[in-house]
Amino acid sequence: MPTADETAALVRAGDVRASARLMRDLDDVRPGAVEVMKRLYPHTGRAYVLGITGNPGAGKSTVVDALIDHYRKLGLRVGVVAVDPSSPFSGGAILGDRIRMQRHATDDGVFIRSLATRGHLGGLSRSTSDVVAVLDAMGFAVIIVETVGVGQDEVDVVSQAETAVVITVPGLGDEIQAIKAGILEIADVFVVNKAEREGADRAVAELSMMLDLAGHPEWRPPIVKTSAPSGAGVAEAVAALEAHGAHLAESGEGRRRRSLRARSRLLALLEARFRRAVEARAPEPDGLEVAIAAVAERSEDPYSAAARLFEGLVPLPREAAARRTG
Amino acid sequence: MPTADETAALVRAGDVRASARLMRDLDDVRPGAVEVMKRLYPHTGRAYVLGITGNPGAGKSTVVDALIDHYRKLGLRVGVVAVDPSSPFSGGAILGDRIRMQRHATDDGVFIRSLATRGHLGGLSRSTSDVVAVLDAMGFAVIIVETVGVGQDEVDVVSQAETAVVITVPGLGDEIQAIKAGILEIADVFVVNKAEREGADRAVAELSMMLDLAGHPEWRPPIVKTSAPSGAGVAEAVAALEAHGAHLAESGEGRRRRSLRARSRLLALLEARFRRAVEARAPEPDGLEVAIAAVAERSEDPYSAAARLFEGLVPLPREAAARRTG
Repeated sequence: MPTADETAALVRAGDVRASARLMRDLDDVRPGAVEVMKRLYPHTGRAYVLGITGNPGAGKSTVVDALIDHYRKLGLRVGVVAVDPSSPFSGGAILGDRIRMQRHATDDGVFIRSLATRGHLGGLSRSTSDVVAVLDAMGFAVIIVETVGVGQDEVDVVSQAETAVVITVPGLGDEIQAIKAGILEIADVFVVNKAEREGADRAVAELSMMLDLAGHPEWRPPIVKTSAPSGAGVAEAVAALEAHGAHLAESGEGRRRRSLRARSRLLALLEARFRRAVEARAPEPDGLEVAIAAVAERSEDPYSAAARLFEGLVPLPREAAARRTG
Repeated sequence: MPTADETAALVRAGDVRASARLMRDLDDVRPGAVEVMKRLYPHTGRAYVLGITGNPGAGKSTVVDALIDHYRKLGLRVGVVAVDPSSPFSGGAILGDRIRMQRHATDDGVFIRSLATRGHLGGLSRSTSDVVAVLDAMGFAVIIVETVGVGQDEVDVVSQAETAVVITVPGLGDEIQAIKAGILEIADVFVVNKAEREGADRAVAELSMMLDLAGHPEWRPPIVKTSAPSGAGVAEAVAALEAHGAHLAESGEGRRRRSLRARSRLLALLEARFRRAVEARAPEPDGLEVAIAAVAERSEDPYSAAARLFEGLVPLPREAAARRTG
């Protein structure tokens, strides 16, 4: 077993194996991983973290691919976290996209990590943050978090980024517009991809109208048209990202978001620890498993069972306890 | 303030105001609400809980409407929980559906409750379970949980039901099929609505093919075509629901699902209590707020901060503590 100092040094040197092991240990909330992160933390916070989401079929991976190219040409190292909360059932198209991105697989300056499950202790958003923290410590200058789909999970994941990009394509019906709801609100930049298709200008006009309705006092998300295979619009997209980065730094918004991220980060880590504590005591006679059986057979109500289990884990604060026994 | 006994009696008598207050108190994890639920629990578990989901525009509310009609004609009282995790942004269509359903609003045998937010302590799935438990205690024979959208939230919510129905319509593209992934796996019954449209038979064939691929050793979800406004297919849909209910009772599946539901229910209630405990101590000098500021300014890493906060809340088990100090 390497020491925390040794692991931290390996991760900072970009060692893929040590870094992957650390990501896994963080997901399992292992105490050793915390010791490593304590050492790595002073070397994080340097990466620019970009979140990218949009409907399946919008060509997200092609845009990500073009962005990787762009940053690599500037000599910057790029980490990619590809998050797919949907089941293996979904198959085909998504996997194909991933494979397409693999042309960067032989480039040492690009590291792609897939997160296909929710993480067994505390959700996908926490796992994503852990992976981003390790990539940051590894020295990647740009970290792209790409997520498939349009649910709350995606909103949570992409909210962890500094700049959130939502990619859409011309010709999606109104039904899709309705699904995207929550996603629209977190967008800092819109990309209308496959702009060579008919209806691209209408898609831009519709997004623009939605933004008019929403009202954006400080930052109105720019809408950029791209045609990723030819590279058209990619420079404009990057300029929009940079403008948003500057806005975050100049306004109070960057600071406000850092605080929100710290809050959700701490709560997610606390909840993971709590869930681990519950699972650790589950087999005990007064633990979770016995309570599950009682609730399933309806011999105890879940509210009382949860109250009892909770008091066994988290003692009442001193005053309340005194009030109880006194 | 009514006593727990008084509130329980009011809820059992179907008092809407007392029941709504109890739902709110459960959402806030108030201790008084637990006392009431202890008294109500022996009177729950009688309702048949039906989960319904599908793409926006699939006509879910029309199908729900037809099902309400069906059960009302049998003299059964019906509770509806309409869950919409997306933001107010989404507006139009969904709200329209809700209003359409309001024709049952003057019927005392129908109670419709909307859940538009995630619930501030522990997620939408917990809030939904709380509302279902209260409706059950109020004596509704059938409880329909209807959810909009296709994300993980919907999967979690609909998994709380005994029978999960997924509604689709002819003519949705492949991109939509990809989104639905996680939802497909939880379906016990498929409904192809708007069956008067072209492509209905192809939609059935496609679903059937997907089911062939998935393999369903014990229960193969039936696929029913409906045309809700005319009522065509509704009787067949109800027959499919009843067949699934019988399967749950006869096979071990009903028992297995009760145990899974008890587990996720207890974990959700425990997490809500934990989050409440964290928030309660947040303003203290060693609480969450100070840690948030430290993490946001990067003067402390989130892993160490979470470890410290957690140890303040949840003491180590005795042996581990002895090992530490010994």
